[in-house]
Amino acid sequence: MSTVGIATSKILKIKNGGNEPTNDLLVKEEPLEIIIGHGPETKRKEFSLAVTMRTPGADEELARGFLLSEGIIKFPADILSAKYCMQAKQPENTLKVELRNDLAFDAEKFKRNFYINSSCGVCGKAAIEALEGELSNKEYPTPKITSKTILSLTDQLTPHQNTFKYTGGLHAAALFDSEGKLLVIREDIGRHNALDKLVGVSGLKQIDLFDKILWLSGRLGFEMIQKSAMVGIRTIAALGAPSSLAVELSQKQGITLIGFLKKEAFNIYSGKENVILNS
Amino acid sequence: MSTVGIATSKILKIKNGGNEPTNDLLVKEEPLEIIIGHGPETKRKEFSLAVTMRTPGADEELARGFLLSEGIIKFPADILSAKYCMQAKQPENTLKVELRNDLAFDAEKFKRNFYINSSCGVCGKAAIEALEGELSNKEYPTPKITSKTILSLTDQLTPHQNTFKYTGGLHAAALFDSEGKLLVIREDIGRHNALDKLVGVSGLKQIDLFDKILWLSGRLGFEMIQKSAMVGIRTIAALGAPSSLAVELSQKQGITLIGFLKKEAFNIYSGKENVILNS
Repeated sequence: MSTVGIATSKILKIKNGGNEPTNDLLVKEEPLEIIIGHGPETKRKEFSLAVTMRTPGADEELARGFLLSEGIIKFPADILSAKYCMQAKQPENTLKVELRNDLAFDAEKFKRNFYINSSCGVCGKAAIEALEGELSNKEYPTPKITSKTILSLTDQLTPHQNTFKYTGGLHAAALFDSEGKLLVIREDIGRHNALDKLVGVSGLKQIDLFDKILWLSGRLGFEMIQKSAMVGIRTIAALGAPSSLAVELSQKQGITLIGFLKKEAFNIYSGKENVILNS
Repeated sequence: MSTVGIATSKILKIKNGGNEPTNDLLVKEEPLEIIIGHGPETKRKEFSLAVTMRTPGADEELARGFLLSEGIIKFPADILSAKYCMQAKQPENTLKVELRNDLAFDAEKFKRNFYINSSCGVCGKAAIEALEGELSNKEYPTPKITSKTILSLTDQLTPHQNTFKYTGGLHAAALFDSEGKLLVIREDIGRHNALDKLVGVSGLKQIDLFDKILWLSGRLGFEMIQKSAMVGIRTIAALGAPSSLAVELSQKQGITLIGFLKKEAFNIYSGKENVILNS
C-alpha cells in the first residue's frame, strides 16, 4: 500500500525541556461530496447524497462502500459507475455515482434515521429491531475460526499501515480470510470511512464478506456493527473496546465479536461457539 | 466524577493459551434525540433536531453544548430550558429544548453543510472560509500559556477518568484555566459528544471559554476544531495527531494547537507565539 494522504507542516517540537523547529507529517483531511447521478435512461434527478470528511485516496471505493453499508443499495452491481465529477469546481473532491436504471431508488431512504421515529420511541432496542427488518434477506452462516488465527491478525498489518506509521493519525480496517490470510487493508482519518473503503473494494473485487474476518483498529460503537451487518460481515475483531449496544446488536445478529485484541489475549463478546480454542 | 454509563456483559477471556468466562464492563451507548420545542409564546413548530449515539449521563449538557458548537444558537441564555421529554416513550433518551421566544431561529441552519454548496465547490479551503463568515463576531484574544502548564495537564486527569478506567471505551474532554487548574471533565463514547458536554456545562456555569485550555483524549479532525472555534475556544491540547485541515483551520483562526501531548513532550502546530517555553 502506498503512503497516500500525507501533508507536511512546520511545527515546533518541545521535548525534555528543549525545543526544535521541524517538519511534521500530517494525515490529510478533505471533504468528499457523493452525488447520485441520473442514469442515462431514467428521469432520476441528480442530487447530493452526502459529504464526508475523509483522507483522499480510494475515493471510488469509499463511495461504493458507503452506499452498501448504509443500505442505500444492496449489491455492488447496482452501481454502473463511480467517477470524479469533471464538471465540479473540485473534481478531486466530488464523486458521481450512476446507479442501475431499473433500480427502485428511494432518496428518502438515506434519511434512514429509524431510531428517530417518535412513535416507536428512541432507544437502542428499537434501533436493533428496526435494523433486523432491513437485514431479513441477509442471513449468512457464521464461520468457525481458531483462536490462533485471531491472535495472528494484527502482526501481519504493521508493514502495511504506512500512513499511520508516518502520521499517527489514521484508523485502519482490514479483511482476512477465515484462515487468517490478509486480503486487503484500507486507512482513513474516519473509522467509518476506513470500513466503507474496505467494503467498496471488496465489492469491486467480488469478495464475499460473510466468510471473512473484519479487523478494526479502533473502538466498536453501534454504527460500526450496523454497517458491518448491513453488508453481511459475520466476524469482527478489534483492538479497541465495544460499547454495550455494539455487543447487543452482535448477539442479536449472531455476529462473532472480539475486542481488546492483543498479542496474547482477546475477549469474546458474542459468538464464542464460533471460536475454536487452540492457542 | 461518578462512573455513569457502564453496563456489564458476560464474556470469554482468552489469555496466554487459557480461557476464562468472566464479566466485563462495557461503556453504555444509547441514542439521544434532541427535540426543539415550541416556545410558550411562539408558533414555532416542535421538531426533531438530531439523534446522536451517546453515553447516557450529562444529557442536558450534551444538548446545550451541541446547539452552541453547531452554531444553532449563539449564547447559553438562548436556551430557556432543556429537559427530558416525559411524553416520549423513552423519556431518558429524549431531550426537549425550549429556546427564547424572540430568537430568530432558522431550522434550516442546522443543515449547515456549507461545504456542500456546488457553486463554491467542495474543498477544505471553502469549508474554512465559510466558517470564517460564521465566526466573524467571535474574535477573542488567545491566552499565553507556559510549556510547563501544558505538560502538567494529562496527569491531573487520570483519577477522574473513571468510566474509561473500567471500560477502556471512552473519549474525554477537559477544561483547564490558563494556569493549568482543572475545571471540568466529561466523558462519552463519541469524541464530539464529550466536547459538547463540556461546552454545555461551561455554558450552564457561565465559564468563559476563550481564556481556557481545552484538553482532548483523541485525534483532532476538522470538525473538532470547527466546534471549538464556534464557541470561542482559543487553546487546544490533544493526546492524538491533528489532521491537515485541523491545522489549517487553527492557523487561520489564530488558535493555539498542540498535538501528541506526552509526559515530557508535545508538538505545536499553530500559535507557537502563545506558548512560553519554560519547561
